[in-house]
Amino acid sequence: MTWTRHHVLGLADWVKDEYDTLLQTASSFREVLSRRTKKVPALQGLVVTNMFFEPSTRTRSSFELAAKRLSADILNFAPGSSSLTKGETILDTAKTYLAMGTNIMVIRHKEAGVPQAIAAEMDRLDTGVSILNAGDGQHEHPSQGLLDLFTICSLLDCDKPRLELLNGKKIAIVGDILHSRVARSNIWSLTAAGANVHLVGPPTLVPEWFKGMKNDSHSGELFLHWELEPALENADFVMTLRLQKERMTDYLLPSLREYHQLYGMTRNRLQLCHPDVKILHPGPVNRGVEISSDLMDDPQFSLIQQQVTSGIAVRMALLFLIGTSSEMVE
Amino acid sequence: MTWTRHHVLGLADWVKDEYDTLLQTASSFREVLSRRTKKVPALQGLVVTNMFFEPSTRTRSSFELAAKRLSADILNFAPGSSSLTKGETILDTAKTYLAMGTNIMVIRHKEAGVPQAIAAEMDRLDTGVSILNAGDGQHEHPSQGLLDLFTICSLLDCDKPRLELLNGKKIAIVGDILHSRVARSNIWSLTAAGANVHLVGPPTLVPEWFKGMKNDSHSGELFLHWELEPALENADFVMTLRLQKERMTDYLLPSLREYHQLYGMTRNRLQLCHPDVKILHPGPVNRGVEISSDLMDDPQFSLIQQQVTSGIAVRMALLFLIGTSSEMVE
Amino acid sequence: MTWTRHHVLGLADWVKDEYDTLLQTASSFREVLSRRTKKVPALQGLVVTNMFFEPSTRTRSSFELAAKRLSADILNFAPGSSSLTKGETILDTAKTYLAMGTNIMVIRHKEAGVPQAIAAEMDRLDTGVSILNAGDGQHEHPSQGLLDLFTICSLLDCDKPRLELLNGKKIAIVGDILHSRVARSNIWSLTAAGANVHLVGPPTLVPEWFKGMKNDSHSGELFLHWELEPALENADFVMTLRLQKERMTDYLLPSLREYHQLYGMTRNRLQLCHPDVKILHPGPVNRGVEISSDLMDDPQFSLIQQQVTSGIAVRMALLFLIGTSSEMVE
Repeated sequence: MTWTRHHVLGLADWVKDEYDTLLQTASSFREVLSRRTKKVPALQGLVVTNMFFEPSTRTRSSFELAAKRLSADILNFAPGSSSLTKGETILDTAKTYLAMGTNIMVIRHKEAGVPQAIAAEMDRLDTGVSILNAGDGQHEHPSQGLLDLFTICSLLDCDKPRLELLNGKKIAIVGDILHSRVARSNIWSLTAAGANVHLVGPPTLVPEWFKGMKNDSHSGELFLHWELEPALENADFVMTLRLQKERMTDYLLPSLREYHQLYGMTRNRLQLCHPDVKILHPGPVNRGVEISSDLMDDPQFSLIQQQVTSGIAVRMALLFLIGTSSEMVE
Repeated sequence: MTWTRHHVLGLADWVKDEYDTLLQTASSFREVLSRRTKKVPALQGLVVTNMFFEPSTRTRSSFELAAKRLSADILNFAPGSSSLTKGETILDTAKTYLAMGTNIMVIRHKEAGVPQAIAAEMDRLDTGVSILNAGDGQHEHPSQGLLDLFTICSLLDCDKPRLELLNGKKIAIVGDILHSRVARSNIWSLTAAGANVHLVGPPTLVPEWFKGMKNDSHSGELFLHWELEPALENADFVMTLRLQKERMTDYLLPSLREYHQLYGMTRNRLQLCHPDVKILHPGPVNRGVEISSDLMDDPQFSLIQQQVTSGIAVRMALLFLIGTSSEMVE
Repeated sequence: MTWTRHHVLGLADWVKDEYDTLLQTASSFREVLSRRTKKVPALQGLVVTNMFFEPSTRTRSSFELAAKRLSADILNFAPGSSSLTKGETILDTAKTYLAMGTNIMVIRHKEAGVPQAIAAEMDRLDTGVSILNAGDGQHEHPSQGLLDLFTICSLLDCDKPRLELLNGKKIAIVGDILHSRVARSNIWSLTAAGANVHLVGPPTLVPEWFKGMKNDSHSGELFLHWELEPALENADFVMTLRLQKERMTDYLLPSLREYHQLYGMTRNRLQLCHPDVKILHPGPVNRGVEISSDLMDDPQFSLIQQQVTSGIAVRMALLFLIGTSSEMVE
């Protein structure tokens, strides 16, 4: 197992060994989580600061519990009641938490590039602080991409989740690709694994230029569709994306009802897929829009609960890997 | 000591043995809280998630400290910055926290029945998760009822608080009975203990049909009054309820001043009660409305501080009893 | 080392021995913070409640991390979602947290005198609870004054920071003295140390009567200036204060731009100071207003990051000293 990465800002440049190290580490933390005492002292004495400039209970709770399981101390930065309203820059806020002794910053921001900017400043100042991107604008959401990957690989081989298991699999990603950081992170990881990724959604939300999102060193292929059927045909996995209702007011799609008729996952449409197909969704789900309510609740097809559970183990693995790498730097 | 209950949703169906087990367990935790190291490892590795859809600092802090004293990990769900505003259902939110590894959910909601609905779903899915109702609409607030019970029983016998101590005692509950979940939980516990409960308040807030709130297997009697004097006459305990000021705009009561003149507890009115009478209030108090300011601060008569202190021990007992019962289920 | 103080409400009446005990204790905690395991069990079992009636992420996070490092349990009172909006008095809120088992209350409020009022009530009731003022109106901000002192003294002798090191030093405090609780706390500590303090700012914000803020037993002198140059001349330290932008709408100063021209610290103005001069700022900084951006980021001159870092050790020292003193009272 090798790990040299100090920040996790996106998956675009990850190599196979890194994915496999992450999957293996997450797998061992899943074993820890099944024990009576679910805590390990791995990050004792380290401070993890959650800086969620864009509010999120779900992802923040997941990172918080992961950090607690590793015995880290946690600070939560709440922008609502913060110095930001007092005119402080984001970099100055980050430096304040650095000066308090923060070792890892978990950052979410509605603008793409903010975690990168903070990481660059931390490196420039030679601080040893690691940055974990928890979602930046429409750019990347690497921990979500990794927990999706871990969920799928664990299904294929629970004891040894590894990248090669996805080689040649067909995976459809359905919905608002254009605005989705989740889709982008998944495209990188899945094509790196050798899976063939089929993007599908309304033409306004699946623009032609997405074909360019292909790393030439990745063996998986990337396909675009504006109709659901060819994307689902014999698919092994279907990833549905959350639909932001405000896209309608932007005239990018007609109505939720029409969206569901054209692109919603239903029991009928499962017939098109591989018999063992599984459905994923990053949550929160608009029931009856991206996916029909009964399908969402059917454990034979839905992996949605497993995704959330995987999130704890994967985020423990991320915090552990960059947290112990940062330690060596200091 | 026997304990088989998996959720605590209300006190309506509690039996004597359960009350005594709870009182005895809370008593032993009170002893723990008096030590230098106030922590026990009882719930180590378990996750307690506070889901307060209705804001409350007081009750949430009390549950949070109780869970910390038991070495549980705590997640706080903050609806303001949450997925709920993104269209997720409450059941899906609960399932997300389930998937993260939550063992006990402490739930407050302004609608009666929400904790019950989540408990039913958790049972249907065979999750082993326990639900603790921290106040649902005008239905029940069982932990408040139990801390009131513990406070009173501890006063009568500090070493062995038990239900029979209340047999034949007269207890007045004063104020807005109609809208009070605290009153309802207390009616169940006090009549189960054999105490005679006298409800009193303005006719608009103490409707006739409250007479039906009597469990036939309970030996305590239930009386209704619209004037304060007969309710206070020789009363051993007087429970004052918080007055919601917005009831005035609903034309359910005239003015705070008139309310105080008719139903406020004052030093003068203490003369009507038993010489050893004690006053309770669930807090927060509107000083000079439900109770006069000097009486509230008089430790000879007021149990208000003891109620808050009892809250920690009682909530530790609740979390411990359902937390260790849920463990056996898993 | 002697320590008898039970509350820390302000620095106006501190004596030299107390400052030196604090500096020495903070110095030993700084050593703890440099270890792999940064935690000591000093306050295990104690409850520290943060009551920030005025929002502040920076100071609250600093106190929270300090309390965690001492193994205390922490409760956060959030006024937004609290009983205060339900008509409860601040003293009743404090008594509620007292009854839950709070040992130390860290209090910030926009009105001067609130921490004092709560401390008086806690003493009257003989509770043993300690109050730590985290900033009250325009009165005092003692932990900020002490972390500034610790930062400066540590620079002069890192191993043995002590009050006498400041004897005869010249320290300029620049900006809105009138509204600054930071300035007031610093005036007390610095003149107690024998430093000569030069206050400077616009006449509207540095009123004549500030000359009275001089404790006759303090050997340091206090000077007032309305022009920057004489204040900076050969100064050893320059403390810049945060400018509240709303002062402009109060007609107390013309524009941010003119303020910077007249009173902003720039590389040019450093020439006036002692060659080893250092700049401080309590944060958050309005870049380009109180201090030019490049000067703020220059580690040769700026102590701003060290101030934040000092904050953790100094607040650990404060919590430890009053926390272990309160223990003896109980």
